[in-house]
Amino acid sequence: MKKTIFYHAGCPVCVSAEQEIVNLIGTESVEIVHLGESRDRSVEAERAGVQGVPALLTPTGNVLQMNYGASLKEVIG
Amino acid sequence: MKKTIFYHAGCPVCVSAEQEIVNLIGTESVEIVHLGESRDRSVEAERAGVQGVPALLTPTGNVLQMNYGASLKEVIG
Repeated sequence: MKKTIFYHAGCPVCVSAEQEIVNLIGTESVEIVHLGESRDRSVEAERAGVQGVPALLTPTGNVLQMNYGASLKEVIG
Repeated sequence: MKKTIFYHAGCPVCVSAEQEIVNLIGTESVEIVHLGESRDRSVEAERAGVQGVPALLTPTGNVLQMNYGASLKEVIG
């Protein structure tokens, strides 16, 4: 099964959401990607339909946008 | 452990998010509440900090707002 990917950018909203998601889904089932640090991942995020962070890309390819932190444009410039 | 509660109102965005959440967390770990049908649950949702649907109230008491569907006011009138 493909992993769930949690995209964030280190903002307080993101960190709080990250903890909740890891608690709910389990550390081993979710990959955490910091788009501010791993800027090469932003193309893949954009293609998947991520519009802002924090966002959860599920194994089925759907994007769940979470509590609004920042737009993808604000993060990747 | 307290259950996670997924609040929704039957909108397409909600239904799609619900399926993803159930897949990720598991049916037995999440209670689904339809605020349009169970209007008596809206007070509890509002107190917990739910601002719109779909939203996920975690066992730790935090609210994760998801892909925007509708505001709580639009749902409960």
